[in-house]
Amino acid sequence: MSFGIDDLPVRDELRGKTPYGAPQLDVPVRLNTNENPYPLPEPLVERIAERVRDSARNLNRYPDRDAVELRTELARYLTKSSGHPVGVDNVWAANGSNEVIQQLLQTFGGPGRTAIGFEPSYSMHALIARSTGTGWISGPRGEDFTIDLAAAEKAIAEHRPDVVFVTTPNNPTGNAVPRETVLALYEAAQAAKPSMVIVDEAYVEFSHGASLLPLLEGRPNLVVSRTMSKAFGAAGLRLGYLAAHPAVVDAVQLVRLPYHLSAITQATALAALEHTDTLLGYVEQLKSERDRLVAELRATGYEVTASDANFIQFGRFEDSHTAWQRILDRGVLVRDNGVPGWLRVTAGTPAENDAFLDAVRELKKEQEQSG
Amino acid sequence: MSFGIDDLPVRDELRGKTPYGAPQLDVPVRLNTNENPYPLPEPLVERIAERVRDSARNLNRYPDRDAVELRTELARYLTKSSGHPVGVDNVWAANGSNEVIQQLLQTFGGPGRTAIGFEPSYSMHALIARSTGTGWISGPRGEDFTIDLAAAEKAIAEHRPDVVFVTTPNNPTGNAVPRETVLALYEAAQAAKPSMVIVDEAYVEFSHGASLLPLLEGRPNLVVSRTMSKAFGAAGLRLGYLAAHPAVVDAVQLVRLPYHLSAITQATALAALEHTDTLLGYVEQLKSERDRLVAELRATGYEVTASDANFIQFGRFEDSHTAWQRILDRGVLVRDNGVPGWLRVTAGTPAENDAFLDAVRELKKEQEQSG
Repeated sequence: MSFGIDDLPVRDELRGKTPYGAPQLDVPVRLNTNENPYPLPEPLVERIAERVRDSARNLNRYPDRDAVELRTELARYLTKSSGHPVGVDNVWAANGSNEVIQQLLQTFGGPGRTAIGFEPSYSMHALIARSTGTGWISGPRGEDFTIDLAAAEKAIAEHRPDVVFVTTPNNPTGNAVPRETVLALYEAAQAAKPSMVIVDEAYVEFSHGASLLPLLEGRPNLVVSRTMSKAFGAAGLRLGYLAAHPAVVDAVQLVRLPYHLSAITQATALAALEHTDTLLGYVEQLKSERDRLVAELRATGYEVTASDANFIQFGRFEDSHTAWQRILDRGVLVRDNGVPGWLRVTAGTPAENDAFLDAVRELKKEQEQSG
Repeated sequence: MSFGIDDLPVRDELRGKTPYGAPQLDVPVRLNTNENPYPLPEPLVERIAERVRDSARNLNRYPDRDAVELRTELARYLTKSSGHPVGVDNVWAANGSNEVIQQLLQTFGGPGRTAIGFEPSYSMHALIARSTGTGWISGPRGEDFTIDLAAAEKAIAEHRPDVVFVTTPNNPTGNAVPRETVLALYEAAQAAKPSMVIVDEAYVEFSHGASLLPLLEGRPNLVVSRTMSKAFGAAGLRLGYLAAHPAVVDAVQLVRLPYHLSAITQATALAALEHTDTLLGYVEQLKSERDRLVAELRATGYEVTASDANFIQFGRFEDSHTAWQRILDRGVLVRDNGVPGWLRVTAGTPAENDAFLDAVRELKKEQEQSG
């Protein structure tokens, strides 16, 4: 036997674990990681090269530790897109929303504290809880993947968590959480004990409804987290951010690694923010493709969870892993998130979506013939 | 009173704390954060723009999660510069060596575990221990800032830490730790309990001696951490890395945030690695300036700790903060790291160093006149 992880003095809870991450397979149509299928427009690519060139001339110096210019532009975008006034002091940015969530759990969770999420939901919430020593509570979700408010309130009252995650639109199910439900969860959380409520809006730009940013008014224990990975078509950039009361922004600075956000990342994100209107135009195309996929899947006889995201949960399958493999055999990679009976597909380009629809129509026929 | 951090449900140990970071003051000569004073050469700036442009064309896709090309090139650099064969499986990279250390403590430290460092040393080790829930033990260092082996072995035997930090060259004192001492500390640590020894070589390229990479042979619980911030003149890039047994690289992948290293960061680091020879040429200039500063400081009547880094600890001062302010009054920003009686100055360009020497010569005269 060769020397491996278990021969090292790793923490006990890591033993036998495997790294998080979707399989990266080389297939023609990849609709498994909710990436935006549209490459950045060439003028933006040039602008990135230009801004990075300028930034590289000072690369021997540490970056702006507080990323003031970037946070100012992110605040401007949030204000413009939501109508709710957001200032630079309300915004914090990090390397992907995963790092934002890690910093929040280091500040408000951690050893001796707990966080709750309503599952199935974004699985990194639980994994980051584990890696920050925060106890994880798997809260309930209804059969139809909505949050059953009474059951959720009961779980909060029982466990008195320090952090409550609400993902809307939810991943991997796609459905949004109604504003009233989020408000009620916030009230329930505060009634149990002073606790932070993190609304993960990674996919909100694809939603039929509005962002919950206006709820920040008068609610200092509320945080809205966002990302440039999806709507801004910049998964490769790793730029996540949050909006919250300025005290929250001050607090995460107690745990953030100094100079966590490189000068190059700041320059690239600033370039992308200059092209917001173009990028949000792609979002409109994706929303329309998403709606087409929902309609076609239903017409083909699949069940579909109502989607406010750039992906769709569809089923049901007796054996979702076999169905995943059958679709892959036809050159289309979707995601098996481990929700029994369901798979998830990302809205791609029209051609990619057509390839996917062909594959699942054939699968349906095959199943009907064998059934 | 306005609503602040303490009105939020932050962790108790964060209450009353302030964010880590040197004061960022706008003065003519900044020699306080051990930055490399030489901007990247223009051909490298162009190469960065070119590589980033290519990378930006795929920015809608997630980056290579395992950064294989970058780790391959880092391994090649380590092999070439140390003579010790290092492969891609021995190397891991993250956003600055701070993130490397954070991942190591999440894997091998954390709640219920402890880490030791021999202080004064790089203060982020203790701070990252705190933010990962790892207990911190302040190990001893001699009056002359060397590690007293007998005292260090005693501390290890007494506290049985899970992680041992050895910073060489040490920051902020500048002196290197002899190879034999590191070997003895490794043996002492293993005798106490299976534990990881992290050799922080952030400044090793400036050393008179050789890297300790060859010690990795046959020592799977040893890790060498490195950075591109100093020798590669890329503090703004935030690229840290480690070399270790492949099992260590596998282990940190259990806690790393997925896609933690952006495509843009990987592209920029790869460009810099193409220009290694040029950048190491600047290192030779800095070493020679460092040696000149040591000689001049001693000639002026200051005490200096032997330096193997791109910075120098000098003293002694009855009141080091006042001395820091006096030097700042002359337009030169050095660092008060909180070591009583001592200050730290980074080797800058010849002109910057001359300005610093003028300032400290005047300070010496002033003190002699008043003394």
